[in-house]
Amino acid sequence: MNSFGRIFRISIFGESHGNTIGILIDGCPSGIKVEQEDLIVDINKRKAGIKGTTERIESDIPSIRSGFLNNFSTGAPILITFDNHNHNSQDYHNILEHPRPGHADMTSTTKYYGFNDLRGGGHFSGRLTLAIVAAGAIAKKIIEPIDVKAQIHSIYGIENEQDYLKKIKEISNLGNSLGGIVECKTKNVIVGLGEPFFDSIESIISHLIFSIPGVKGVEFGNGFGSTKLLGSENNDMLLDEKGSTKTNNSGGINGGISNGNELYFRVAFKPASSIKIPQATYNLTTKEINVLRIKGRHDACYVLRTPIIIEAITSIALADFVLLKNALNLSIKTKK
Amino acid sequence: MNSFGRIFRISIFGESHGNTIGILIDGCPSGIKVEQEDLIVDINKRKAGIKGTTERIESDIPSIRSGFLNNFSTGAPILITFDNHNHNSQDYHNILEHPRPGHADMTSTTKYYGFNDLRGGGHFSGRLTLAIVAAGAIAKKIIEPIDVKAQIHSIYGIENEQDYLKKIKEISNLGNSLGGIVECKTKNVIVGLGEPFFDSIESIISHLIFSIPGVKGVEFGNGFGSTKLLGSENNDMLLDEKGSTKTNNSGGINGGISNGNELYFRVAFKPASSIKIPQATYNLTTKEINVLRIKGRHDACYVLRTPIIIEAITSIALADFVLLKNALNLSIKTKK
Amino acid sequence: MNSFGRIFRISIFGESHGNTIGILIDGCPSGIKVEQEDLIVDINKRKAGIKGTTERIESDIPSIRSGFLNNFSTGAPILITFDNHNHNSQDYHNILEHPRPGHADMTSTTKYYGFNDLRGGGHFSGRLTLAIVAAGAIAKKIIEPIDVKAQIHSIYGIENEQDYLKKIKEISNLGNSLGGIVECKTKNVIVGLGEPFFDSIESIISHLIFSIPGVKGVEFGNGFGSTKLLGSENNDMLLDEKGSTKTNNSGGINGGISNGNELYFRVAFKPASSIKIPQATYNLTTKEINVLRIKGRHDACYVLRTPIIIEAITSIALADFVLLKNALNLSIKTKK
Amino acid sequence: MNSFGRIFRISIFGESHGNTIGILIDGCPSGIKVEQEDLIVDINKRKAGIKGTTERIESDIPSIRSGFLNNFSTGAPILITFDNHNHNSQDYHNILEHPRPGHADMTSTTKYYGFNDLRGGGHFSGRLTLAIVAAGAIAKKIIEPIDVKAQIHSIYGIENEQDYLKKIKEISNLGNSLGGIVECKTKNVIVGLGEPFFDSIESIISHLIFSIPGVKGVEFGNGFGSTKLLGSENNDMLLDEKGSTKTNNSGGINGGISNGNELYFRVAFKPASSIKIPQATYNLTTKEINVLRIKGRHDACYVLRTPIIIEAITSIALADFVLLKNALNLSIKTKK
Repeated sequence: MNSFGRIFRISIFGESHGNTIGILIDGCPSGIKVEQEDLIVDINKRKAGIKGTTERIESDIPSIRSGFLNNFSTGAPILITFDNHNHNSQDYHNILEHPRPGHADMTSTTKYYGFNDLRGGGHFSGRLTLAIVAAGAIAKKIIEPIDVKAQIHSIYGIENEQDYLKKIKEISNLGNSLGGIVECKTKNVIVGLGEPFFDSIESIISHLIFSIPGVKGVEFGNGFGSTKLLGSENNDMLLDEKGSTKTNNSGGINGGISNGNELYFRVAFKPASSIKIPQATYNLTTKEINVLRIKGRHDACYVLRTPIIIEAITSIALADFVLLKNALNLSIKTKK
Repeated sequence: MNSFGRIFRISIFGESHGNTIGILIDGCPSGIKVEQEDLIVDINKRKAGIKGTTERIESDIPSIRSGFLNNFSTGAPILITFDNHNHNSQDYHNILEHPRPGHADMTSTTKYYGFNDLRGGGHFSGRLTLAIVAAGAIAKKIIEPIDVKAQIHSIYGIENEQDYLKKIKEISNLGNSLGGIVECKTKNVIVGLGEPFFDSIESIISHLIFSIPGVKGVEFGNGFGSTKLLGSENNDMLLDEKGSTKTNNSGGINGGISNGNELYFRVAFKPASSIKIPQATYNLTTKEINVLRIKGRHDACYVLRTPIIIEAITSIALADFVLLKNALNLSIKTKK
Repeated sequence: MNSFGRIFRISIFGESHGNTIGILIDGCPSGIKVEQEDLIVDINKRKAGIKGTTERIESDIPSIRSGFLNNFSTGAPILITFDNHNHNSQDYHNILEHPRPGHADMTSTTKYYGFNDLRGGGHFSGRLTLAIVAAGAIAKKIIEPIDVKAQIHSIYGIENEQDYLKKIKEISNLGNSLGGIVECKTKNVIVGLGEPFFDSIESIISHLIFSIPGVKGVEFGNGFGSTKLLGSENNDMLLDEKGSTKTNNSGGINGGISNGNELYFRVAFKPASSIKIPQATYNLTTKEINVLRIKGRHDACYVLRTPIIIEAITSIALADFVLLKNALNLSIKTKK
Repeated sequence: MNSFGRIFRISIFGESHGNTIGILIDGCPSGIKVEQEDLIVDINKRKAGIKGTTERIESDIPSIRSGFLNNFSTGAPILITFDNHNHNSQDYHNILEHPRPGHADMTSTTKYYGFNDLRGGGHFSGRLTLAIVAAGAIAKKIIEPIDVKAQIHSIYGIENEQDYLKKIKEISNLGNSLGGIVECKTKNVIVGLGEPFFDSIESIISHLIFSIPGVKGVEFGNGFGSTKLLGSENNDMLLDEKGSTKTNNSGGINGGISNGNELYFRVAFKPASSIKIPQATYNLTTKEINVLRIKGRHDACYVLRTPIIIEAITSIALADFVLLKNALNLSIKTKK
């Protein structure tokens, strides 16, 4: 439930207002060189403080507590933790009687019979993606020279960076929020990654992507757009024996397996549910529709912080695929 | 790789032109009543013969070979097989030198070092979805009274059934193909299904959905559309203590957990890669761009056959979630 | 529950008096050459007909139904089935009211709420080990040149073959049964197999071994005998840089990892529970202690048929370890 | 590799001389009441300081860092860590050139290509069993009123406590070590735990048991002794409809499933490999047989500390079985 991966396997833990969050990594090969700075470079890309993102400041210093010796992985499990300091649980006092629209407040309370930690979203907090970014930094080392790069595609449907930044400022001042689309492009992918039937590249990446709070859609290649093309338009013409194609409508994947072209997909993030402007919603105590005012620090557009998370997710998925491909390479033993 | 699920677990096997395809189901509770006819009802919905779908006719009779006694599940693994009869491997002779655009021909040959079975797509054939439909028919019994219903949303962007059927006929006559979108609506979902962090409802369903050949995109609730809404527009207003909401932009899921409203998602299928009209593509023998003419029986619009597959996938995912929820219901042992 | 393995993964199915038993293998590398005859050679070693073993004769012809093309594995899942012909379910009519001592009759009926298939032991039948032997024959090909060899160590405490065969004949004539010990010696084991903490060589082998009906104990190296030695007596003195040791009290395993010496363990099988001589036991209908007379065909000493099963189990465990070792060999990417 | 369990799942991490060791628990139901003191009670039973056990003193205070709120489990993953303080890595300087007989020094160095942490045994240290004891204390709460109790059966073959304690003192003074046998008796076991074919009670318990450093054998019921009994002697006569038996040669398990009688098994621990008296062994630098003198703190008889570990292991195994039984209890939905 809180673990993922067959060989390179991550397990996430922690709550927004608990004393720690982090990740445990098993199945990392020995001899991978990683320095704390490698993690911090990626962690900083996820940091709050960018215009339109949350004002909560955490030190976000990763503590690598096992599995490394002299900056090389030992082959034993890797524990990475982050301490929580800067939280203020009072902001969340009225959640229990007034579940916030769009949040896990009501579903998690029902699911866990009221024993769940609701403070700051608890285990459902976006803060846990910090741990995923740390694991991603290690995965990137394993998959070198595969090169994963994610970026904002559009915010509120606006593709031009200056325009959408202006829009975020405007909406932020109104106490409202915006969603957007992130795209991910991966180069130097070797042919043959992906383990169909059930563990296609798309299956594994989408599984991980949909664990990120706020994601509502994923499409590979031209995705939903392909439903409006004819087969002759959508097929990618093969150009050489390496498998290069003239177009890349498939997003670099055929039959669930990488074809060596750029791996390409897009992720839809909804606008943040926590907004400052008043919302009408049901109150469990008064049993009436009341107006809810959510306090605290909230992103008008957390999407700006997510590209590095998408990179991490993709790297984690590919690391496992690379190790699985290694595992099953026994063809040297046989002759056809 | 070819298995999925934590408790209710399916394992798929077989090749298009081998002697059998089928599915093995483990973790089915004992005492579930299923008759062969239950499977056949769903299997018939996937059948070829509808206008615009493949002409290959198979008997498609499921053989339940273990795990049942007198039509009740015994708790032991359930093996369901389908024999293959009606195949003609000659059609596929030139695949090796002329990989078909959009197909797994080249990727699977590289991945399996040339030992893969290319005939009819081998293990990558859409025929394997027949086995998933059979497993889905059993899953539906487990999740009763949850009610899963999938249908065509649009073909080639056309939402009107008569219009899109006319378009399929037109394109089919040209030897070309069309894609489309399937939507799935599930009623009577109990609150609390889904196992975040990594096994959210969206994660598990998308994982399974992307294993179906041809899928290029999945979105829950208003999905990509939500990126163009403000938070105040996208949040679903709570109406009562059961969690009913005024709108359902979330698709019935908050924080990866079902909220009791209709579970709603949409799936994008690309147009079929196998088309009769000539295509220019690279020839591995001549080392030149040549014209490829694909023979054999092929759907102009296989999408028409997929709603029952989406229903099966969804039922399989929900069956596992229901069993997991059962497993973790120990709250009766404790007092807060 | 009915599957085992991380990469090379087996899933077993079938019932003694159902229509088929068999095994599904996932994660077999492509390009492994196996002929039906390879399976039959091992299957014949498990056959009934040896003095003291059951009189039930089945054809035991394996049908390889997917995952192979021209005798080479394709990388897709491998389904192997065996048809059941020669069973006579009338023998088992009175089991429900008169659970047989030492059998799963009562436990499985309780566990599966009465829906289980009791005929011939159902899914708990020793007949399922036939499927394991088939999978083992494939695993042996993967681990070559590792050489696994199991044999009878003793029957009823008697180590001399002629003596124990005479004892079996004597006890068989009385309608009673005997147990025994099987030992397994594996040569050419590479150093470094085993995945502690939880997946030590001993853990994985014992897990599989204890799934075989009748096993009640497993010991590695000098096992229980080591509890009566001092540390100085039990430690194996190292002789060279390859890790050869003067003694092999450890059974070729240190810290859960193979050390390159002979892998050695012993397995204790209890005497068969099905015996022809009358037994006093509780009758669920009369609610009294009654005398039970078990009819049908039963081994006086099924242990004679088990060495090939132990070989199969060991080969299956080692195949997975070999693939895992492959997976994690990335050290070439790094320099210390 | 470092995780175990299907629903109640533990993941272990840390090294003897690293900065932390601990365990991550997923799949713990919400609402389980556990106080730090519950953990400490069990942890103290494993403590050094008993005559004949290691002199290393650690505070061994568990830090529960996530998954609990006000002493009730929340349903989110539970992280428990222990800091390491009292280690002295100089003692282990000469291991690299002089692998210690009976230890993982050589096997782990080969396996991890020299990147492993050898200090104090690294990830292979018996210190990690501390984390297992902590997880066991939580598992015990889940399985109440099942009552697990382990104790010393014999040391160096001596069953009388006073005699064996005297023997330990004698051997300890010589700088040598002794092994022994631990037995485990579990009462109030419900009928129907265990998930054959592969996940029998014996399979799961032995898998976990063999992950504990020093274990070389496991037997259930009368185990190896049953090989010297006839079937009529070994069968347990049924006494009533609840399944009570006159004898308990089966150890409370039939067909891999609990039968409601006392669950009984025995574990063989070898004598500790680390002994103070000089040992002849191969030196990788001099390429000669040299005399090795191991310094540092070492148990003459660590076996005295292991019963609580066996209790923890058993409780962890049973917790998962209890949750699985919950999961599959759908019989209420059906009528036969």
